[in-house]
Amino acid sequence: MELLTVQIENPQELNFILGQSHFIKTCEDVHEALVGAVPGIKFGLAFCEASGPRLIRHTGSDEALEQLAIKNMLKIAAGHAFILFLQNCFPINVLKTLWNVPEMVHFFCATSNPVTVVIAENEQGRGVLGVIDGFSTLGVETEKDIEHRKKFLRDIGYKLR
Amino acid sequence: MELLTVQIENPQELNFILGQSHFIKTCEDVHEALVGAVPGIKFGLAFCEASGPRLIRHTGSDEALEQLAIKNMLKIAAGHAFILFLQNCFPINVLKTLWNVPEMVHFFCATSNPVTVVIAENEQGRGVLGVIDGFSTLGVETEKDIEHRKKFLRDIGYKLR
Amino acid sequence: MELLTVQIENPQELNFILGQSHFIKTCEDVHEALVGAVPGIKFGLAFCEASGPRLIRHTGSDEALEQLAIKNMLKIAAGHAFILFLQNCFPINVLKTLWNVPEMVHFFCATSNPVTVVIAENEQGRGVLGVIDGFSTLGVETEKDIEHRKKFLRDIGYKLR
Amino acid sequence: MELLTVQIENPQELNFILGQSHFIKTCEDVHEALVGAVPGIKFGLAFCEASGPRLIRHTGSDEALEQLAIKNMLKIAAGHAFILFLQNCFPINVLKTLWNVPEMVHFFCATSNPVTVVIAENEQGRGVLGVIDGFSTLGVETEKDIEHRKKFLRDIGYKLR
Amino acid sequence: MELLTVQIENPQELNFILGQSHFIKTCEDVHEALVGAVPGIKFGLAFCEASGPRLIRHTGSDEALEQLAIKNMLKIAAGHAFILFLQNCFPINVLKTLWNVPEMVHFFCATSNPVTVVIAENEQGRGVLGVIDGFSTLGVETEKDIEHRKKFLRDIGYKLR
Amino acid sequence: MELLTVQIENPQELNFILGQSHFIKTCEDVHEALVGAVPGIKFGLAFCEASGPRLIRHTGSDEALEQLAIKNMLKIAAGHAFILFLQNCFPINVLKTLWNVPEMVHFFCATSNPVTVVIAENEQGRGVLGVIDGFSTLGVETEKDIEHRKKFLRDIGYKLR
Repeated sequence: MELLTVQIENPQELNFILGQSHFIKTCEDVHEALVGAVPGIKFGLAFCEASGPRLIRHTGSDEALEQLAIKNMLKIAAGHAFILFLQNCFPINVLKTLWNVPEMVHFFCATSNPVTVVIAENEQGRGVLGVIDGFSTLGVETEKDIEHRKKFLRDIGYKLR
Repeated sequence: MELLTVQIENPQELNFILGQSHFIKTCEDVHEALVGAVPGIKFGLAFCEASGPRLIRHTGSDEALEQLAIKNMLKIAAGHAFILFLQNCFPINVLKTLWNVPEMVHFFCATSNPVTVVIAENEQGRGVLGVIDGFSTLGVETEKDIEHRKKFLRDIGYKLR
Repeated sequence: MELLTVQIENPQELNFILGQSHFIKTCEDVHEALVGAVPGIKFGLAFCEASGPRLIRHTGSDEALEQLAIKNMLKIAAGHAFILFLQNCFPINVLKTLWNVPEMVHFFCATSNPVTVVIAENEQGRGVLGVIDGFSTLGVETEKDIEHRKKFLRDIGYKLR
Repeated sequence: MELLTVQIENPQELNFILGQSHFIKTCEDVHEALVGAVPGIKFGLAFCEASGPRLIRHTGSDEALEQLAIKNMLKIAAGHAFILFLQNCFPINVLKTLWNVPEMVHFFCATSNPVTVVIAENEQGRGVLGVIDGFSTLGVETEKDIEHRKKFLRDIGYKLR
Repeated sequence: MELLTVQIENPQELNFILGQSHFIKTCEDVHEALVGAVPGIKFGLAFCEASGPRLIRHTGSDEALEQLAIKNMLKIAAGHAFILFLQNCFPINVLKTLWNVPEMVHFFCATSNPVTVVIAENEQGRGVLGVIDGFSTLGVETEKDIEHRKKFLRDIGYKLR
Repeated sequence: MELLTVQIENPQELNFILGQSHFIKTCEDVHEALVGAVPGIKFGLAFCEASGPRLIRHTGSDEALEQLAIKNMLKIAAGHAFILFLQNCFPINVLKTLWNVPEMVHFFCATSNPVTVVIAENEQGRGVLGVIDGFSTLGVETEKDIEHRKKFLRDIGYKLR
């Protein structure tokens, strides 16, 4: 078994969720769940079937996002992994909706940062072990940083004053 | 710290869930949750206690499945990991029920494919980092493949026409 | 990419949860969710912001627990990872509450055991791949051990006789 | 506005759930959710559309159960109400699955008892206010009754000894 | 105790949810949950405090919707009841998000139909017993109606073909 | 069918939840769920069995609360209804935990206010239609009242400044 890394290709710094599911039904279930959660949602999903024809199963409401998802899963190629790119909404809007999909197994990350995917590979296949999501820590927030953080969340309306 | 791999022993290609929990109460809670979710469910569960007597805690409604779960966890031997084998139902039937168990931490995979478990080991103990679930991707589904995928899900009654 | 390990510093063997989220809003949302879940809860949280100022964002209802969380995340320094130390309650009391936080991504472990965190590092940053949680398995529980396990859970009132 | 009552017609004392939803999508969503929850589930569902053609929308995996559901909803005829009859499983197996259906609003009862439905009617339409589910209380359980209750749940395997 | 009815005032046939909660924290929690669920959501909420100053507590992202909610709750005036009007989204988008609010108790209806609220009143106060949501049933759907229903859901993209 | 009202007896103005479930397993499941949710929780539960021996099934961690629950359910005597009194915690701490109990059907109220229960009774039995929870509305909150409301929630630590 060897470890290798794949860099997520994401030129527009879109938000995406990398996760794992366990059945090709994931495509339709995630599609219908997302469409029912955020009106007019733009997304592209690609899922690696892990047996039988072993194809990348894909769906979406936006062709470019769907192609971007496929391109990334061709590079990852790990059984039962999926990637979901989002354009007009954020992971915070859809994580609980995705989780309600009955065949969902887990999420590796939800982010718009540069991501390095750590993959284990042997003669059998490939599996995602985890991700490097964004950049390393530079320090600890001070009282002033806390004020800014809270102000920011209130300025964008996510928290009330 | 070294990485090693364990191959899941699963001669009948049963469905199973490999996951992590945090307390020996997992055995009874998972047992009662499954029995209350699928009438007549056949399952076997083994969970690695991570401190104190450090025993494999086990339960089930089917002796052979329980023994298969124990056998696999003896090979994995990672603190707080568990494996659940299912016979007359599918992961899709029980994942949300399992997740409602209050001490559940996460799932590594839900599958009936061959699985290689990637394990980190040091002088302290062992931990599951992830899995290679099934086989690598062979290509991207075409319009014809999508039709087949959708037809299959409708033929088995999981999606309506 | 290289693997490295970090030992969680936890001299009082407190319970803690190591997980991953995706937004600095995590600090306030986890704080409010915990305070609304367990009356008088004592906790400390630290979360690694993964872009922009890349600071350790922190909060808590107990200064010592908050400092312990910060200290550990300075060592882990993996984008979007968080650690939550608990004093007067257990992970079983709060895992589902944490999961309801909309930006929650996943949990690596919930434990009071010694924990070795396995980290992938490259020039971009760091990511948690998994943990070694406690100690390796010593054997399989016998009928007598099962009796003790069940008696223990009934003695502490978690299960009814 | 007047109050009236409707007696649920349920000659085989089947389990059923009476509830309220808010969209004709309920039919397909409940169907797919149930089929994915309990392998081989036998059910019949009828839902009262509350505007437009105002038809009883129905589905099921068993014709007799579907007809029984329709027959009862013709008598109830309250906008957005639904009834779900179950044959080879119990409400306890499916209530959380039903709840995950995104348009679900609430449940009035889950029972196999005789049920009187209390309905408010005016010139606009009808609404379910609640139900009389089974029979009135005869007394308080004694220590001996508690023992019997616990033994019964352990005899049928729902709780562990 | 007397029964009375209140007609929901909803001239634009907006979607709304009538429900019950148990604490003035509902205002902020529902506000933050909705803003985090649907980007740019337009809503107005009014909640009847049931003790102390007994005021209608209100919030929203749209002044007209907030005023409409207040106007309706002044007419209903039942302790712990709330109404939520939605403009650019549907109940299906937010019911599960609302349910995650920790003080949520239940929903009476989610609809854009005319609604008559049935209220119990005594010298103590008022309580909602239920609603007449839309209009009474006209018949049972035929095979042709089922085809139309399914086609409609696929035409609007909520279900896949 | 006749309507009648029952006044909840609650001399210490304790918090309580009135709800409906569908099986005597409710007693043990609610007990175990509460004990696993809030450390040291003090509660008393009484549930009206709706068929067979039709006894009030009861449990609790505090004898006085359990007796208070029984006393109230003897007055309500409606099949499948339950009441849960809480002493050292609040409904907000336990509503989602209760909801996870697989046989839970719905909640009528969560409150410490005076409550009038509205009951339908016929020759068959009794059913709860709803409640009058606390007192009627006196007016609409002003900007000043909103400030006070927000300050109060921040003073008690439920929301962050």
